[in-house]
Amino acid sequence: MTRDIVIEAMDGADFAPFGDLLSVSGAPDRIINQGLCGRWHDQARIDIVDGRPGISLFQSEARILPLALAMVERHPLGSQAFVPMSLDPFLVVVAPDHGGTPGRPRAFRTSAGQAVNIGRNIWHGVLTPLHAPGLFAVIDRIGDGANLEEHWFDQPFTLRDA
Amino acid sequence: MTRDIVIEAMDGADFAPFGDLLSVSGAPDRIINQGLCGRWHDQARIDIVDGRPGISLFQSEARILPLALAMVERHPLGSQAFVPMSLDPFLVVVAPDHGGTPGRPRAFRTSAGQAVNIGRNIWHGVLTPLHAPGLFAVIDRIGDGANLEEHWFDQPFTLRDA
Repeated sequence: MTRDIVIEAMDGADFAPFGDLLSVSGAPDRIINQGLCGRWHDQARIDIVDGRPGISLFQSEARILPLALAMVERHPLGSQAFVPMSLDPFLVVVAPDHGGTPGRPRAFRTSAGQAVNIGRNIWHGVLTPLHAPGLFAVIDRIGDGANLEEHWFDQPFTLRDA
Repeated sequence: MTRDIVIEAMDGADFAPFGDLLSVSGAPDRIINQGLCGRWHDQARIDIVDGRPGISLFQSEARILPLALAMVERHPLGSQAFVPMSLDPFLVVVAPDHGGTPGRPRAFRTSAGQAVNIGRNIWHGVLTPLHAPGLFAVIDRIGDGANLEEHWFDQPFTLRDA
């Protein structure tokens, strides 16, 4: 099987097994502030075990395609939402679990204005901006304990456009 | 006393009585992802009573200065974080409490890459982007109950640059 993974456009239905896509598509759930603001309500399943959710900022180096994917990780104790603080797309890499190890990964490229919440214990790649400044707000678990499992592939995959 | 309020540059120390400034100034608290990413850890005091925190998206009309400020509001049951999803500055209007009514407001203009968390029960103006698309992720309380108090000023203030 080819080690190349063709990047897909982000789609909420395709992504649903792995987490939540946050976006303002469709009509807002509520109109607030004297009609001047729409609210798309409660878009992420925050799922934290034995801790509390917090907001941290991440700044990551932008990557260039094609990109080698050598490792994925998962967090058994909490979901992790990534909110880009610029309108630039970024890559979201996720993989199904096959009995404790990751199956073949999938890679999604977001559109401007999309954020994601990766489900608790879902295999995923590290934060992968495609443009500087690579700045994100991250809503994830604050707490002690072992909350990181890494899996290194025998051979890296290559993430590329079609 | 003049009804004009001169907009100040956002400063974490000046803003501290009203909430938290989230930014990547200074060295990161941790370096993660094989050295490629900095984490500025746990920057917001999420303070939710009788409910849970959630992530919603807001899209608001951009405002033009000078701007009339007729109303501020507060949420007795929860803090409210505003994370801009573009690099554009926005206005943050807050006011001290004087025995149940707001004192003279202050207005802060953020810099690119800054987010804010407004404290529980702190008087504040509605979300005020200065540029389209006016898109924000908002981390606030999800739950039932009365969580909004509005105060309309007898005379509006005017927010303006110096």
